[in-house]
Amino acid sequence: MPEPVTSAVDVEVRYIETDQMGHVHHANYVAWFELARTRFCADAGIPYPAIEALGYLLVVTAVEVRYRQPAYYGDVVTISARIAELASRRMRFAYEVRRGADLLATGATEHFWVARDGRRPVRMPESLREPFARLAGAARAS
Amino acid sequence: MPEPVTSAVDVEVRYIETDQMGHVHHANYVAWFELARTRFCADAGIPYPAIEALGYLLVVTAVEVRYRQPAYYGDVVTISARIAELASRRMRFAYEVRRGADLLATGATEHFWVARDGRRPVRMPESLREPFARLAGAARAS
Amino acid sequence: MPEPVTSAVDVEVRYIETDQMGHVHHANYVAWFELARTRFCADAGIPYPAIEALGYLLVVTAVEVRYRQPAYYGDVVTISARIAELASRRMRFAYEVRRGADLLATGATEHFWVARDGRRPVRMPESLREPFARLAGAARAS
Amino acid sequence: MPEPVTSAVDVEVRYIETDQMGHVHHANYVAWFELARTRFCADAGIPYPAIEALGYLLVVTAVEVRYRQPAYYGDVVTISARIAELASRRMRFAYEVRRGADLLATGATEHFWVARDGRRPVRMPESLREPFARLAGAARAS
Repeated sequence: MPEPVTSAVDVEVRYIETDQMGHVHHANYVAWFELARTRFCADAGIPYPAIEALGYLLVVTAVEVRYRQPAYYGDVVTISARIAELASRRMRFAYEVRRGADLLATGATEHFWVARDGRRPVRMPESLREPFARLAGAARAS
Repeated sequence: MPEPVTSAVDVEVRYIETDQMGHVHHANYVAWFELARTRFCADAGIPYPAIEALGYLLVVTAVEVRYRQPAYYGDVVTISARIAELASRRMRFAYEVRRGADLLATGATEHFWVARDGRRPVRMPESLREPFARLAGAARAS
Repeated sequence: MPEPVTSAVDVEVRYIETDQMGHVHHANYVAWFELARTRFCADAGIPYPAIEALGYLLVVTAVEVRYRQPAYYGDVVTISARIAELASRRMRFAYEVRRGADLLATGATEHFWVARDGRRPVRMPESLREPFARLAGAARAS
Repeated sequence: MPEPVTSAVDVEVRYIETDQMGHVHHANYVAWFELARTRFCADAGIPYPAIEALGYLLVVTAVEVRYRQPAYYGDVVTISARIAELASRRMRFAYEVRRGADLLATGATEHFWVARDGRRPVRMPESLREPFARLAGAARAS
């Protein structure tokens, strides 16, 4: 089985992302994950704006973050994303946040596909199945 | 001329709204203004979600904030909004942020009306003219 | 065993909290949880700003959110918080987000205590043990 | 007189930065300005974290934004910053937000210097005067 493909995006910590503890507020990691997911789709040749233009939304049904070390203003952090589970109606992404070699946080998001009109759950758009399955590698659902 | 009507909303400062200086990050006041504007429309009997449902958007074209004293986590601040200028295609709201009697910030936003479909500039929806003019009081444009 | 105490806070959805899907962006629930946690501490007679003034920080080590139904601009949502686990060095809060009777989301956060100076892990401040244990009810750790 | 120096930073629009109008919420431009200001200081050889480490804060006293065209998810926007006014105790930055050649927004922020301890207004740190004056070019105060 091929390895799952990983995409990564570098983010310069914004001052507004800090809080009065002096480091990045924990909610911002959720936005960082989304940025890595956007990059993953773009790297896959399936930019997320194009998915929405096709009439589909990839709705978030769950998010988890585990924090190991704080990130600081002045840091550049790297967020990586990969497909952790892939099924016809649902998928799960896994993430890592690093500053250089240091692992700052890990996490995951779960999603299901929705038709933009009517907002009813649907199967993954036909045109995305092959590329997403290829990217998912060993994470591909049976 | 009647006095312009003012609406006010109380906001409990959120931890996420602080930054590493130890007080509320300045960008959050823009979101607070919006909350006071929402309250103003609701108090006026014209809830902003109803305006959008009518097919109109009140697009922001300018924002200004002047900061006098910081707000802190643990504070409850009061944001007041009133119409400062009212014309058929544009309007301006003015805001004050207070903690008790202390004036923390002042500001303003400018807007124009857009039809939701097509996003072209339009005149203020007919049904809002009388109530907005009444609320604007002396600020009503000639 | 007594029931765990629950605190709740009402939040008016902010326009800025929506995204182009037309409902509240999922990251905002993390900030809402924090607001409910703040209310919990205040209701418990231990305002979180007072905890920081004592020299302690309650650092977030994990967050989880499970989304069931979207929240919309115009909604008022109620976020409730309770202690789900309590140990001398760690604790876990559980949350629910409701719009009236509808359950929109559930979640949890995990924390450990840190001394503000030096940022080393410590036991829960002595003065908080009895009140937190009382609030935790059946969730109290053995 | 030399031209003022301009720094620029590219930002990939985040999904969380959009709102239900379908474009970037106006408050995010304030955070983008800050990112360009951070880059300006770094380009000037005076990273802002180093300024804070010296014991100084550059507190925001005013912000203005004028919006011309919306930014969308999927866009990469360029935010440029330059010193518009420079005095011993205050300074003003000016900003432009562009998508390619299109000017999306302009704005400014005003600041004064504060000693981190005690939060009293002070003159610009000695070590920053020459580099900031050089960068300010024709904008240098008399």
